[in-house]
Amino acid sequence: MTLTLAKLGEAELLRRLACFAPPGQLADDTCTLAADTRQLLVNTDVLVEDIHFSDRTTSPEDVGWRAVATNLSDLAASGAIAVDGITVALVAPGNTHWSWVEDLYRGINEALSCFGGILLGGDCSAGSQRLISVTALGRVGPLRLHRADACPGDWLVTSGAHGLSRLGLALLQGDPALDENETLTVGLRDLAISRHQRPIPRLDALNTLLDQKPKDMPWRAAGTDSSDGLLAAVQALCSSSHCGAQLTREWLPKSTDWPSGSRWDEWCLNGGEDFELVLSLPPAWAQRWIDHQPGSHRIGSITGDSNAIVWSDTRRPVAAAGFDHFGSSLNDA
Amino acid sequence: MTLTLAKLGEAELLRRLACFAPPGQLADDTCTLAADTRQLLVNTDVLVEDIHFSDRTTSPEDVGWRAVATNLSDLAASGAIAVDGITVALVAPGNTHWSWVEDLYRGINEALSCFGGILLGGDCSAGSQRLISVTALGRVGPLRLHRADACPGDWLVTSGAHGLSRLGLALLQGDPALDENETLTVGLRDLAISRHQRPIPRLDALNTLLDQKPKDMPWRAAGTDSSDGLLAAVQALCSSSHCGAQLTREWLPKSTDWPSGSRWDEWCLNGGEDFELVLSLPPAWAQRWIDHQPGSHRIGSITGDSNAIVWSDTRRPVAAAGFDHFGSSLNDA
Repeated sequence: MTLTLAKLGEAELLRRLACFAPPGQLADDTCTLAADTRQLLVNTDVLVEDIHFSDRTTSPEDVGWRAVATNLSDLAASGAIAVDGITVALVAPGNTHWSWVEDLYRGINEALSCFGGILLGGDCSAGSQRLISVTALGRVGPLRLHRADACPGDWLVTSGAHGLSRLGLALLQGDPALDENETLTVGLRDLAISRHQRPIPRLDALNTLLDQKPKDMPWRAAGTDSSDGLLAAVQALCSSSHCGAQLTREWLPKSTDWPSGSRWDEWCLNGGEDFELVLSLPPAWAQRWIDHQPGSHRIGSITGDSNAIVWSDTRRPVAAAGFDHFGSSLNDA
Repeated sequence: MTLTLAKLGEAELLRRLACFAPPGQLADDTCTLAADTRQLLVNTDVLVEDIHFSDRTTSPEDVGWRAVATNLSDLAASGAIAVDGITVALVAPGNTHWSWVEDLYRGINEALSCFGGILLGGDCSAGSQRLISVTALGRVGPLRLHRADACPGDWLVTSGAHGLSRLGLALLQGDPALDENETLTVGLRDLAISRHQRPIPRLDALNTLLDQKPKDMPWRAAGTDSSDGLLAAVQALCSSSHCGAQLTREWLPKSTDWPSGSRWDEWCLNGGEDFELVLSLPPAWAQRWIDHQPGSHRIGSITGDSNAIVWSDTRRPVAAAGFDHFGSSLNDA
């Protein structure tokens, strides 16, 4: 006898979900945020079953964690120094087990405990497919990071290694293409799976960035996160700033023990869901950030050659391979 | 040749959606709200196809309008005097026509034009079922309406007639039970369909409430909206405030030309989706509000008899018939 949402009923479901928020938080039609002199940052991200997660690779706790992490990563990439909290819209079929929902909200609260904020409010409904839509609210610090503020001469830097989440997904899916790579170390395998299941929004790396600004320098930097892949992040900065970029092949931000080969470079560039900060900074600020932020890397430079993203050695374009959520894997009748 | 989202691709879809927001508004990972000395109100509501809307009864423009209206109704019922805007998470199958999405966002913008606020940001993804999750942000005025602030002796009042949305749905669905009612006037039919397709968040009625508070009276009132039905709203106020209520049968808030009969009373009490304010007010304030707010009604009184909601003549319980989104109409394998 499993307890499904249909058996539970909507009123009891809401009563149980209220236990994941501070007492009384979900008692009214809306929730209130205290007045604050700092600008508010708002972000909405939706995770859909079989698009962004599946039972095969992601436990409900991990879905909850990821839903929070993806949203807070956007806040970090915009300059948030504090997280107020999130609202959650949950859609699930009536035959969904309560235990799945309970674990989902456990994962949400684990992430909030780590990175700040509370469950502010939300909504739930039946639907044919499980999904969770999260809106995160935070407060901007002294630097509002925009994509459009990159300048030629800036260094392109990132807070960590890329491709790990893609490798983790391949390992969890038992991708046969990985059989040939007996040489993957246990450390790399574990790290890759962890990064896929429990990505970390880089609020820490943002704090270092704020701390390390040279005193005589204005608050001018460009930034985004690499949720759609490292190259997509560079493209977003270049496109918004009407600049180009040169990437240096030897500087590709790879994890320790990362194998060599074109597929591995491809995953590093286009694997996606790495949730690292990708920044365009004046060189002196960039150098100080790299010196003080463990795991950060320089990957290249911003140029004035609008929208041209090239390798520094050959000057040939860096090939893109973006992920299209509405693409051919989906029903296109 | 129809243009589907799969053919359009995610990047082009996002580019087109950006046209529904102010220039540059969707250009970054997050959006910013200006600092404001007033408390922020936040609400999230999700509308799912075949649960909250269907092609048969709701055009895409009306879905967009409703998604905004349901959220702003919650803001009004919490005391919002200004709307900052909304974020929108859109989920739709790849075979969805672009024209459907375009019309959806047209309806969103029509509602925002009427009631305030802009499209602040959002996300989109493929999924098996069309749905829209909206988070609305607004600013509270001098009165933060809570459900828990009702007191025995208060008058129960509401901003308008109830049951219209339910009647509108029945008319749009061609409900055979309506055939017997040849006596429905054209005016009532038109009003009912309009209320179902284009519900109005009662920010106007809130403003009257704020204007009409007697000067010597504290800012104490309880409120919610009747999105789940009039009786559900009264139950929410009573349950949160540990009070009871007496409803007066002759005061049921019915529209002009509303037929008599038990089914019609039932729709008035439990039809749902009326989006009127339901308030518990000190009598003097309530009387002033009714005098100045066209269409408002007194429906009963708050009592100290915790959770007992009874008819004033018979003292017998008013029967509930709530709508459960996870209920038996859904798959319960």
